[in-house]
Amino acid sequence: MKTLAELAQHVGGKIKGNADIEIGAVATLENATAADISFLSNPKYTNALQTTKAGAVIVGKDTDAPAALLIVEDPYYAFLQIVVLLHGHRQHKNVGISPKAGIAKTAKIGTGCIINDFATICDGVVIGDNAVIYPGVFVGDNVKIGNNCILYPNTVIYEGCRLGNNVIIHANTTIGKDGYGFAPHKDKLYKIPQIGGVAIEDDVEIGGNSCIQRGTIEDTIIGTGCKLGDLIDIGHGVKIGPHCLLIGQLAIAGSTTIGHHCVIAAQVGIVGHIKIGNLVKIAAQAGVINDIPDGQNVAGTPAISALNAKRAYSTIEDLPKMKKAIRRLEKKFENE
Amino acid sequence: MKTLAELAQHVGGKIKGNADIEIGAVATLENATAADISFLSNPKYTNALQTTKAGAVIVGKDTDAPAALLIVEDPYYAFLQIVVLLHGHRQHKNVGISPKAGIAKTAKIGTGCIINDFATICDGVVIGDNAVIYPGVFVGDNVKIGNNCILYPNTVIYEGCRLGNNVIIHANTTIGKDGYGFAPHKDKLYKIPQIGGVAIEDDVEIGGNSCIQRGTIEDTIIGTGCKLGDLIDIGHGVKIGPHCLLIGQLAIAGSTTIGHHCVIAAQVGIVGHIKIGNLVKIAAQAGVINDIPDGQNVAGTPAISALNAKRAYSTIEDLPKMKKAIRRLEKKFENE
Amino acid sequence: MKTLAELAQHVGGKIKGNADIEIGAVATLENATAADISFLSNPKYTNALQTTKAGAVIVGKDTDAPAALLIVEDPYYAFLQIVVLLHGHRQHKNVGISPKAGIAKTAKIGTGCIINDFATICDGVVIGDNAVIYPGVFVGDNVKIGNNCILYPNTVIYEGCRLGNNVIIHANTTIGKDGYGFAPHKDKLYKIPQIGGVAIEDDVEIGGNSCIQRGTIEDTIIGTGCKLGDLIDIGHGVKIGPHCLLIGQLAIAGSTTIGHHCVIAAQVGIVGHIKIGNLVKIAAQAGVINDIPDGQNVAGTPAISALNAKRAYSTIEDLPKMKKAIRRLEKKFENE
Repeated sequence: MKTLAELAQHVGGKIKGNADIEIGAVATLENATAADISFLSNPKYTNALQTTKAGAVIVGKDTDAPAALLIVEDPYYAFLQIVVLLHGHRQHKNVGISPKAGIAKTAKIGTGCIINDFATICDGVVIGDNAVIYPGVFVGDNVKIGNNCILYPNTVIYEGCRLGNNVIIHANTTIGKDGYGFAPHKDKLYKIPQIGGVAIEDDVEIGGNSCIQRGTIEDTIIGTGCKLGDLIDIGHGVKIGPHCLLIGQLAIAGSTTIGHHCVIAAQVGIVGHIKIGNLVKIAAQAGVINDIPDGQNVAGTPAISALNAKRAYSTIEDLPKMKKAIRRLEKKFENE
Repeated sequence: MKTLAELAQHVGGKIKGNADIEIGAVATLENATAADISFLSNPKYTNALQTTKAGAVIVGKDTDAPAALLIVEDPYYAFLQIVVLLHGHRQHKNVGISPKAGIAKTAKIGTGCIINDFATICDGVVIGDNAVIYPGVFVGDNVKIGNNCILYPNTVIYEGCRLGNNVIIHANTTIGKDGYGFAPHKDKLYKIPQIGGVAIEDDVEIGGNSCIQRGTIEDTIIGTGCKLGDLIDIGHGVKIGPHCLLIGQLAIAGSTTIGHHCVIAAQVGIVGHIKIGNLVKIAAQAGVINDIPDGQNVAGTPAISALNAKRAYSTIEDLPKMKKAIRRLEKKFENE
Repeated sequence: MKTLAELAQHVGGKIKGNADIEIGAVATLENATAADISFLSNPKYTNALQTTKAGAVIVGKDTDAPAALLIVEDPYYAFLQIVVLLHGHRQHKNVGISPKAGIAKTAKIGTGCIINDFATICDGVVIGDNAVIYPGVFVGDNVKIGNNCILYPNTVIYEGCRLGNNVIIHANTTIGKDGYGFAPHKDKLYKIPQIGGVAIEDDVEIGGNSCIQRGTIEDTIIGTGCKLGDLIDIGHGVKIGPHCLLIGQLAIAGSTTIGHHCVIAAQVGIVGHIKIGNLVKIAAQAGVINDIPDGQNVAGTPAISALNAKRAYSTIEDLPKMKKAIRRLEKKFENE
């Protein structure tokens, strides 16, 4: 339990209302009780604010509400700080190094590591301090893993890949499988050995059931601080700059480069061998087939400016009417 | 072997032809033999009915065919009943509780459970009766599992999630990984602890290689009787009503709610924070960005009425001609 | 190290420049050094050829470059041959049959097989010679596997499926999970037992995190030499002919047949019960709802000729202008 005053101090916010109320948990506006704090960052939920039973609500500006207000510059970030304070991040049971894991003698494992049953750590692997390796994880030959990494159950990392510090990889994700590279020759397809690896930089989190291919020649790179969703497909030799948000089910084909601080939404497809600039935003389901300069927002297939796309794609519904109108005009014209 | 008469009695159907023929298996119209029963529910296969060598065919109405007919109201459901009768559901070898599984002492496991090698059952887990846990499955701390559940190999269930009775989860699927929640702050992205769980109600089946995120604050819910396909991505806090069909590779973003008896086809994307009503049908590859009222059929991106979408999207092909026609009309007009 | 002359002989090419230089590795045009060979097959990289520091470059025709040239008919295939020569395919550590694997007594395993820790081989399985089974792999009852197959970590193969020779399956992929088949009856959905299997023919490679459903009645078939990408979803009873390229995240619904030598790009969706001919090319993100004859190239949703689609889809951006133009014309006409 923290008082609202303590929470306000923690996030650097102002209080409107009773600073002494005690808050034990975070809850939604809809289901919060008097001992909960809630938040409003999405304007869609403004109505829910009027009827909330929360003891306090984090908001971006003073407003009327039946709860105490914690007014901050960035409600979503303050919400995060308070969730961390009140609930904390996941704790991992310290089982040490399980004798039921399969660990090669030549593997070097740092201090404070947790390696669970049925994990496999192959020859030449180097793992830093405080790693948490869940059951069923496979870490291939000569993989290098930094400090404070978490590999959730059944993560697979093929040989030679490198993870920085504070990397989190969720369950059933595959890192470093062979790039999709086959050369056709006389009606058959031949496999090209994929001699690059995957380099995942510091502070990256990768979702569940995702797959990142190793490079054909050079490493596939996931830049510092990137956050990848679930069921993502990253091609061979793709290079992603720092601090990008890559949301679920997107696919980026081989050798494409992405700048820093991009936001690429769900189910986007990006062809190979192109260059996406910095601070680019790509809307969900877009199909990107050309380079995109810095700072552009795009949408649609093929992707165009998001503003144009919004108008253009909502006009598709009018196509049958437009076609008829053109025919009518043509007929009238002919008849004159 | 069953006689056609026995099958007819089992499904409540009428026979046209020899009721005494013996049927041992279900087969396709194309490859059936005299000891097989086939079925016609998709009219696409009406031609195949004329040349089938099946001993009998399940149909919805009397018709000419070179086989005995089993005439029922709902041929697809009768087919199901007969497959179950003749072939049965998968049997699971009763290995009991394998000593090579890793089972926490505090886990409570019901009677008749099968837990295979290399499965991990963590602290505080409660599993009902007759569960089948295949190798490589991970069941995290305090997960609750009802009766008669089947977890296929390498399924991963993160801590605190709850499964009802008769739940089936296919291989390499991930339940309860962290919701995709990151708050940007001063050019970096910070992870929001995801304190909700996942609640999967009775009679749900989830396909392979799918991923269901836990809720940020409140549980993600998969309603009673829902059937999910493969490679599905369900966001944090999504709530899906009972008896929905959710087909492969669809994605539903965080906090969206879906009503009951919806059918959402393959590769659909649905944005977060919207409300899909009951009995809604969404066509494959649609992109849904707004609420959908009960009973609507939609298609396209952005999704519109399925009827309009069919005409509109098939008109896209005519766009270049339409553009030229407009130019021609404009020129003629100017020239007058 | 090989001399350029040796490489030229290996691939049957001509040399322009110094045939005696020694080459140790393959590298990109951008980062190659004097001891590296690079290649130019994608014309996008023609500029990089002019500034490369590679000792030699594989090209399709004579050109000016600051490196020796190895001129061949098919640069991509020659590149493949040279990567294989200089770097080789992945080597698998020969751990023999691990005592920590779970192998049924009734399983028959050929000579030279490698079966790692925590792999499960069930009753009645038959595995040919020289198989490599990585940790966490599950091979269900009565699965038949040919010679020289590689199953990467956490691959799951359900009972009764059949793999030919030289089949490679990447990590976290699922073969033979139940087809998505449910019959609605009185507001509930009932599971149809899926009595078909999956037959994967010789020389097939399947990517990571993919899912191939078993057939409802007849086998799902992946033809000889097919190469499948990551996160692919193949429905029940789909039959794919030989030597197809099926790229990541595509989905093919139940009972559809695909001919030979097709190329189906990323994120394509194909409905069930249709027939795709031979040598068909389907562009990324296309939605295919009708049969496609041999040799066609298609794109778009619904898929149309790729040539028409290119023009048509790039015209979507002009829709708002076209709509306005039509209105203007209609007004002018009325005013006359």
